[in-house]
Amino acid sequence: MRVAVVLTARSSWAKLEPVCRALRHRPQVDLQIVACASALLERYGRVVEVVRSQGYDVAAEVWSTYEGATLLTSAKETGALLTELGTVLSRLQPDVSVVCADRHEVLAAAQAVAYQHLPLVHLQGGERSGSIDDRVRDAITHLSDVHCVATDRARCRVYALTGEWDRVFHTGCPSIDLANEALHSEPVTREELGGAGAPVDPRDPFVMVLQHPVTDDMARAGDQMRATLEAVAEIRLPRLVLWPGEDAGHDAMAKAIRVWIADHPAQSWHTLRNLPPQRFLRLMTQARVLVGNSSAGIREGAYLGVPVVNIGSRQVGRELGPNVRDVPSSREAIWAAACEQIQHGRYARSILYGSGDAGERIAEVLCGITA
Amino acid sequence: MRVAVVLTARSSWAKLEPVCRALRHRPQVDLQIVACASALLERYGRVVEVVRSQGYDVAAEVWSTYEGATLLTSAKETGALLTELGTVLSRLQPDVSVVCADRHEVLAAAQAVAYQHLPLVHLQGGERSGSIDDRVRDAITHLSDVHCVATDRARCRVYALTGEWDRVFHTGCPSIDLANEALHSEPVTREELGGAGAPVDPRDPFVMVLQHPVTDDMARAGDQMRATLEAVAEIRLPRLVLWPGEDAGHDAMAKAIRVWIADHPAQSWHTLRNLPPQRFLRLMTQARVLVGNSSAGIREGAYLGVPVVNIGSRQVGRELGPNVRDVPSSREAIWAAACEQIQHGRYARSILYGSGDAGERIAEVLCGITA
Amino acid sequence: MRVAVVLTARSSWAKLEPVCRALRHRPQVDLQIVACASALLERYGRVVEVVRSQGYDVAAEVWSTYEGATLLTSAKETGALLTELGTVLSRLQPDVSVVCADRHEVLAAAQAVAYQHLPLVHLQGGERSGSIDDRVRDAITHLSDVHCVATDRARCRVYALTGEWDRVFHTGCPSIDLANEALHSEPVTREELGGAGAPVDPRDPFVMVLQHPVTDDMARAGDQMRATLEAVAEIRLPRLVLWPGEDAGHDAMAKAIRVWIADHPAQSWHTLRNLPPQRFLRLMTQARVLVGNSSAGIREGAYLGVPVVNIGSRQVGRELGPNVRDVPSSREAIWAAACEQIQHGRYARSILYGSGDAGERIAEVLCGITA
Amino acid sequence: MRVAVVLTARSSWAKLEPVCRALRHRPQVDLQIVACASALLERYGRVVEVVRSQGYDVAAEVWSTYEGATLLTSAKETGALLTELGTVLSRLQPDVSVVCADRHEVLAAAQAVAYQHLPLVHLQGGERSGSIDDRVRDAITHLSDVHCVATDRARCRVYALTGEWDRVFHTGCPSIDLANEALHSEPVTREELGGAGAPVDPRDPFVMVLQHPVTDDMARAGDQMRATLEAVAEIRLPRLVLWPGEDAGHDAMAKAIRVWIADHPAQSWHTLRNLPPQRFLRLMTQARVLVGNSSAGIREGAYLGVPVVNIGSRQVGRELGPNVRDVPSSREAIWAAACEQIQHGRYARSILYGSGDAGERIAEVLCGITA
Repeated sequence: MRVAVVLTARSSWAKLEPVCRALRHRPQVDLQIVACASALLERYGRVVEVVRSQGYDVAAEVWSTYEGATLLTSAKETGALLTELGTVLSRLQPDVSVVCADRHEVLAAAQAVAYQHLPLVHLQGGERSGSIDDRVRDAITHLSDVHCVATDRARCRVYALTGEWDRVFHTGCPSIDLANEALHSEPVTREELGGAGAPVDPRDPFVMVLQHPVTDDMARAGDQMRATLEAVAEIRLPRLVLWPGEDAGHDAMAKAIRVWIADHPAQSWHTLRNLPPQRFLRLMTQARVLVGNSSAGIREGAYLGVPVVNIGSRQVGRELGPNVRDVPSSREAIWAAACEQIQHGRYARSILYGSGDAGERIAEVLCGITA
Repeated sequence: MRVAVVLTARSSWAKLEPVCRALRHRPQVDLQIVACASALLERYGRVVEVVRSQGYDVAAEVWSTYEGATLLTSAKETGALLTELGTVLSRLQPDVSVVCADRHEVLAAAQAVAYQHLPLVHLQGGERSGSIDDRVRDAITHLSDVHCVATDRARCRVYALTGEWDRVFHTGCPSIDLANEALHSEPVTREELGGAGAPVDPRDPFVMVLQHPVTDDMARAGDQMRATLEAVAEIRLPRLVLWPGEDAGHDAMAKAIRVWIADHPAQSWHTLRNLPPQRFLRLMTQARVLVGNSSAGIREGAYLGVPVVNIGSRQVGRELGPNVRDVPSSREAIWAAACEQIQHGRYARSILYGSGDAGERIAEVLCGITA
Repeated sequence: MRVAVVLTARSSWAKLEPVCRALRHRPQVDLQIVACASALLERYGRVVEVVRSQGYDVAAEVWSTYEGATLLTSAKETGALLTELGTVLSRLQPDVSVVCADRHEVLAAAQAVAYQHLPLVHLQGGERSGSIDDRVRDAITHLSDVHCVATDRARCRVYALTGEWDRVFHTGCPSIDLANEALHSEPVTREELGGAGAPVDPRDPFVMVLQHPVTDDMARAGDQMRATLEAVAEIRLPRLVLWPGEDAGHDAMAKAIRVWIADHPAQSWHTLRNLPPQRFLRLMTQARVLVGNSSAGIREGAYLGVPVVNIGSRQVGRELGPNVRDVPSSREAIWAAACEQIQHGRYARSILYGSGDAGERIAEVLCGITA
Repeated sequence: MRVAVVLTARSSWAKLEPVCRALRHRPQVDLQIVACASALLERYGRVVEVVRSQGYDVAAEVWSTYEGATLLTSAKETGALLTELGTVLSRLQPDVSVVCADRHEVLAAAQAVAYQHLPLVHLQGGERSGSIDDRVRDAITHLSDVHCVATDRARCRVYALTGEWDRVFHTGCPSIDLANEALHSEPVTREELGGAGAPVDPRDPFVMVLQHPVTDDMARAGDQMRATLEAVAEIRLPRLVLWPGEDAGHDAMAKAIRVWIADHPAQSWHTLRNLPPQRFLRLMTQARVLVGNSSAGIREGAYLGVPVVNIGSRQVGRELGPNVRDVPSSREAIWAAACEQIQHGRYARSILYGSGDAGERIAEVLCGITA
């Protein structure tokens, strides 16, 4: 059977790779990875090359991202992707297709599959995270045939939306599979780290920052990043900053980081782009605290027990494990919560988002679809 | 305030026109009609010209329909429309936008609006009609901010999906406003009728056929049309056939009609395309029975009390008034139900889908959005 | 070596097939046929199925035609094709690509190839036929690397435009290869003919009509077709009418034909769509006169010696053999010239457009490109 | 009369603005500026804001640039632009449209106009500059109706291509109008300069670098930039570097600049992006030598008498005034030529590319088209 996996962003590969790995070991499966949108872009680490370097074939590439990163270009590139994915899926004729999460490109992928009446499996439906992502995620749920959800609450929501009990599978999130591996790996060393700026040895204590723009509140993206940088600047530990993701508002955030670092040469700031998911997770387990609004802190962080300061509205409604402290985007609040979390240290493992075997379980579901 | 009304198909104008009429009378409203997709096509009656002939300005035209009418072209044209509507909305900058119903082009329109964070009002959410339309309709609901629904059950469903009580308005369907007008109009005469084939005087008894392809079951579109034609051929009344709508499968149905008529020159068949909504409704009230799967039989038919034979799965789950008899797509079943309905005659008025004032009520909702 | 052949219209297959046939016999060649635009459409005979039925693989299909057939949709579909052909060529990575003739879709194909810096071979450059086609053809010449031209005059023009002598090859037009085959084949019989309308035996004398819209003069498309039909109606021979091609204006012409035939049931009119090129050429040799503005009358007609009445401006500037009589689009002029041509009978063979071996010669050129 | 001016890149505004200025003063002209592609992008200085700040209305914006800046995305964005420009022109219905120069976006614009049978005026046809630009420029010439050329040789070439003498006007290049103004303006001061890096007073001697990627030779873009930087690093004057333009290969060049400057903190490097054309020209007159491959050095440079070192193949075939020294992309050659040019000092004015009144003359031509 042909299984198409539609990869539209760097962040999804951490969820899709454990599934692909489990599919690869099944002789009856012909795996068709379709790499689209920012998964192809240098600026976001060209994750399609990571995919290839892990030994996977890429069945199709669809360049669709418009320059500009505005709300308008989001709409336009969604349309462009939908148009071309139609052609690609019509050529590949998968027996089942898989998409993941809640970005606008994923809705395009879901439409391309659904409009051609090909069975669609959606990972990570039913969650809540605030912002337009919630709407897009639920819209994708409605276009999907089968749902592999991460949490028990997500399972209930997908059931409430679709009314279909037998097509909702509580598999856990496959990113937890990678988190589980990361737990049993060697720490990231200075050599392995790469990046730019002040030298940092990640085996020594450090603060990690990963903050993305909030699409509903794009105009304040720069201010929000500055508040975080100001708070983190007051902590007497080296700071690792990852560049923000590809949403509208990215440019203002990246600029805020560049300006801050240029203006504070005496502070120890180290910037990183394009970490492979596995290395990112290992690094996260080494951080004294992760500050920002990345879903990784909440999802994989729960399993890894990493202390997290979660800023602002980007994850509103997201189910939280005990490791997360929610704060508004203010310098003082961020600073206070980060200090508390550093004090507390690592948390016990939570299986809220999965127990490390989601890839296998999702592969099982996929293979059962046409059986 | 600027109100954009996105019109993507002939059938939606019957719902949107009463809203536009009510908006036109409000001095504070700048009405921006955006005509897209099949609303521009000759083959589907170029409803955009109807719009203009009723004295409305058209703020933008977006040609987006691909030739082919396959599942693939449905996906592609949805993408093309989304891409260009982004540009159009970015130029028009409406304070609020309105879309209607459940076709794939409407999902594109909803995305274009929602991705630009402009308020979106959806008409006819929460209904059930079977097929992929249900999924698309619910997906649109999730992308919308405000919902004007036709029935009480629809109101409950939208609330269940969105969790927002205050943003769901039970206004009734504006097509009932037109039905109400039709009730008080003169009957359609032979001169007014137009069309091709055997001459028919619509003031005398006749059978009316309006059947669209079922997108889930496209391969059988031709067979389904033939079953209906065979059944209707056995009824000893003149027959008015309307050409089917623009969904995938249209070509097979149109061909079945052409072939049947050419093969049965002795039977009285009259074909019509491109009736203005008002004339269509008046004509419907004159029919002894309406055979097919059009939603008009169910919606406006309930209010008008027209006997309807509803064939197959296209309206599965749709709320039915007493005037509708559901049958599978088989010659015998269609024939038997049509005979019964002719025998029964007109039904009493039902306000299941509205009581004739929806246009005004929706305009009220729209004007309240930014107030 | 990989050779991509981009097929964008029914009419081009007659030129590209002899090339593909010659390439197929060369073991070093991996032939990649890319079928686009109207080559995929039912309405124009879905030539892609002809291609497959002749045993060729189709490497990619790109649906790109917009409904509407207006000047606007011509522009839009050219853009849509260009966008997707980029993706397709990037996947196929041909060593050389071939395009043919002068339609707007071909310019899109040429751009897709040229912008990716892949070598492009153009067939039928340097000709003149009036209208915007001349401009588009010359624009394609400028984007091409190698030119296989049909006539000596075309060779001179391409040289004048490009200044490159060594890259212009006078191979003749491959459609003449098919004409040569047609000369040596059995006549088309009544059984083989197909079509609709009055029965015709093509082994008996008949008049053949093939007239396309002139893109510069679209508004008069219907009138022009009517003038031709009126003239031909006065000739006392059965009439075979082929449906016009896919340019803007098609709809008006098709309608003119349908209306005329419906209004003149007593006259003998037979309509045909979707003839395979070979059968079309055989049929043409059987016609007493070919009336219209098809390039086939001029090109293959010269070799076959078929009497042709060429109407209006569509072929202005085209090199003519002795078999062609040029007339304006007026009933009288068409009628008079048709009568003269019927009187004259078949002409002697002219090799103006080639001598029947162009396919082989073009294949030779192609294989030499990377050698 | 409505005159549409299609602006697709920053560099074209210097040519189109003098035309717009001349049109603005004519009461009968309704000027419709259509801003597309990189003219909208922050990364290239969002020239559309410059347009607005100069008091012009912008009739339409078309975002079309794809992220990636590869050969593939060039093809795709050309298609996207063509598709949407169709819609825009169909709305604006200009009596005549103007496009400028030779980039792939301009060919899209020319197609959009020509396919809708609207008159098209092309500026800067008939020139030679090597690379695929020559092909694209000639292709645009073939799609255009009227040609306003910069040089006498260009006039001859356009005539040779089109065979139309009366439609080719030798107006000069409107960029020379701006150069003429720049000659009579105050020098750029340190305050006005902006930019980043080592402080520079542009009234003191300095070297100016402006080098763009060569689309035919993209793989070596980074190396080429490095050779230039190495050469210029050896000249004992402050260095002003402008960021390269938006062609494929841009990223490698920008990276080479960033890396070089970071690695040589002791050298005086100042970087600039987004200079308004007028300021750019004034600055150029102050440079001791302009090093790179910008057409400005050749065109405006001729009129201004600025010593120019022109590197590599980007301007091959371009007509050169006495002020230009051609060199290959090698450190030694660049260095030697730059030293020579500094020694020589300013050249006498050449009117090779115009005498400063092209804007008016082109406006005259435009207004005569429908008169």
